[in-house]
Amino acid sequence: MSSIEYTVKGMTCGHCAAAVTEEVSKIAGVRDVTVEVAAGRMVVDADATVTYELIRQAVEEAGYEFVGR
Amino acid sequence: MSSIEYTVKGMTCGHCAAAVTEEVSKIAGVRDVTVEVAAGRMVVDADATVTYELIRQAVEEAGYEFVGR
Repeated sequence: MSSIEYTVKGMTCGHCAAAVTEEVSKIAGVRDVTVEVAAGRMVVDADATVTYELIRQAVEEAGYEFVGR
Repeated sequence: MSSIEYTVKGMTCGHCAAAVTEEVSKIAGVRDVTVEVAAGRMVVDADATVTYELIRQAVEEAGYEFVGR
């Protein structure tokens, strides 16, 4: 398992954090998601099966801009 | 029926607008709620039975600051 930090743009409140957390948590193999709205930071604890691309898709599905690592 | 404009503080995104709209819409006698996030403006179309106090409570229940008319 690894813990990787990503940058996400566009989150402004706790609802935004919840929306991103919910979408990323749906990915099989994701164990934990922590979001800091003000910093635009998201830390994802996940199995090695969880790809960068899957996380990017989930963030965009939630309606936010995935900037990357 | 009357259409009254209120000021609400703390809304930052569409989720916030949805949360306020949902809570105020639950009040019996409320016909329509329109929220403009950027302006902090909410227009409520409602029957005369809907009091200022009921609207204030609903906005605060949603987690935002009710400034008033």
